[in-house]
Amino acid sequence: MSSIYNFCAGPGMLPPEVIEHLREDMLHWGNTGCGLLEVSHRTSAYADLKAHTEANLLKLFGLDDQYTILLLQGGASAQFAMLPYNCLREGASADYLVRGYWAEKAAQQAARVARIRRLHDLRDGWRNDAVYAHVTTNETISGTALPENFTKPDVPLCADMSSDILARPRQYRDYVFFYAGAQKNLGVAGLAIVVAEKEFLSKARRNLPAAFCYLEHAKANGLYHTPNTFAVAALRHVTDWLLATGIETVWAQNQRKAEKLYAELDASSFWRPIAPHNERSITNVTFRLPSAELETRFLVEASHQGLLALKGHRSAGGIRVSLYNAMPESGVDKLIAFMREFNQIHG
Amino acid sequence: MSSIYNFCAGPGMLPPEVIEHLREDMLHWGNTGCGLLEVSHRTSAYADLKAHTEANLLKLFGLDDQYTILLLQGGASAQFAMLPYNCLREGASADYLVRGYWAEKAAQQAARVARIRRLHDLRDGWRNDAVYAHVTTNETISGTALPENFTKPDVPLCADMSSDILARPRQYRDYVFFYAGAQKNLGVAGLAIVVAEKEFLSKARRNLPAAFCYLEHAKANGLYHTPNTFAVAALRHVTDWLLATGIETVWAQNQRKAEKLYAELDASSFWRPIAPHNERSITNVTFRLPSAELETRFLVEASHQGLLALKGHRSAGGIRVSLYNAMPESGVDKLIAFMREFNQIHG
Repeated sequence: MSSIYNFCAGPGMLPPEVIEHLREDMLHWGNTGCGLLEVSHRTSAYADLKAHTEANLLKLFGLDDQYTILLLQGGASAQFAMLPYNCLREGASADYLVRGYWAEKAAQQAARVARIRRLHDLRDGWRNDAVYAHVTTNETISGTALPENFTKPDVPLCADMSSDILARPRQYRDYVFFYAGAQKNLGVAGLAIVVAEKEFLSKARRNLPAAFCYLEHAKANGLYHTPNTFAVAALRHVTDWLLATGIETVWAQNQRKAEKLYAELDASSFWRPIAPHNERSITNVTFRLPSAELETRFLVEASHQGLLALKGHRSAGGIRVSLYNAMPESGVDKLIAFMREFNQIHG
Repeated sequence: MSSIYNFCAGPGMLPPEVIEHLREDMLHWGNTGCGLLEVSHRTSAYADLKAHTEANLLKLFGLDDQYTILLLQGGASAQFAMLPYNCLREGASADYLVRGYWAEKAAQQAARVARIRRLHDLRDGWRNDAVYAHVTTNETISGTALPENFTKPDVPLCADMSSDILARPRQYRDYVFFYAGAQKNLGVAGLAIVVAEKEFLSKARRNLPAAFCYLEHAKANGLYHTPNTFAVAALRHVTDWLLATGIETVWAQNQRKAEKLYAELDASSFWRPIAPHNERSITNVTFRLPSAELETRFLVEASHQGLLALKGHRSAGGIRVSLYNAMPESGVDKLIAFMREFNQIHG
């Protein structure tokens, strides 16, 4: 396995020790006498796991108990609908900054349940009477990121952070509500991490169907329905690993990985980077080759060398290199060596 | 592990070979070059897994392609809301047979989005103008089951089968829509199996928020959001195991397990079975002891012998023995031996 690198945009690569912990948990989980998959979510073992994991997350976000964490199902996509359904009452409206595929998805779903306004450019200005403003911090398909210092609104700020959550230090307290699917930087598919300021959440709607209702999930302490216990255990191991490594160390490594790769792309006109310079993502690097034939050849030859899942999203084509936290720097080095060779032969 | 038996009501025991397959999948999954947890849901490997698993299920249910399977998140509890939200249009109404805790939960959630009528006794009669009728085939908390030959309605029949799905042969084609959380008889937490007759589903509402909309999930072929790929792999292994064993063999074993245990309960007045004779569940056997003190002692001593998770639901108290498909007959034999000893000392 050591020479195989998986550049998938999600589900993504996991730290090998996380997989080993999970395999061990499946045989013997703590002092439960059972394997992880067979333990009830009503046990103290699960309560401890959940408390430990949520404490890890708050520590990593630099947040205190003014925030609450909900570990839900349905991925970030379910939050596209749940956020406006829960937080926009009759007649109320929200601003959505739409500068990519996923931001548009969020806006589309919100528009099915409430009134929203789309902003395509921050220069258009946020409204002051919106209930909240919504941004997407990183767009996996175009490989573009919202600059950290973008103009914040005066109203509560919400964000889909699915593809760069905990990939970098961030002023998480600038946001009253943010969410992410776990399967990129935080574990495995089937879990959404929702982080909400308690005061913002307290104004949400009640008496919705419980499965769609944040306040019901909060009231039930995450046990309204049987949680995805396996994904929570994965999240625990990933956050343990992040805390042990240190978010600054991870961030420094993520910067090095992205900078190396962008430097390579900029060094030859053979490569055609897709994202504008000032919006380049550190987690998803996208580029094209001179022809579709060369792109196909690139993908096939890369996979023969153990460089996997480099194909761009079906809506964008080209090459996409996803560099989540678990991708080691050696993976990028190997990719760059392959790219140089490929360029020499076909350039 | 061989002498430990986990009688949890869910997540429940898994066949040991299923756990071994999953542990292996996590290292090397098919010819993907990656572990199961790191493979994209957009690969042919996942498409094959999904197709194989759904074909397994249809075969086990004895259904053909007039039915479709949706592998969703949010457990059966999310279906409590989604079924009426999707299938009851403005002004339409459904009948809910309510004879236990989970049936009442389903009815409560339906009442938040639509008009329903509760039936507490089948002698009250189903309505002919309901859009559908809903039943709960087995109640895990009381340990009661709906007899297989109950009076069916003349309108489309829907069911929550979470706790006895594929525990027995059944005329699944009597139902136009049925669903179950996977974590009892079909795998791990974080997955709901929804089976719908295509014609029934075709009348459902469109343009709902996609995450809550059956027709959107069907249109996206289960990929509207990143599916719980691990739970689908678990379901695949469980259904492979069920097909290899044979549902008639599993059913015969399930009957023997339940009959032995009920015979033991009926043999001494020390035990106080909770469910009425003619409604006894084969998957969840519930009883009380002469005092709460004895019940506590029973649970502690049982767990010392490796007989785990026998505590009744918090709302019911007493003892609950869950006998899902993966519980071997030897587990019941060991439990009965312990019960005899306990009765001799404390009876």
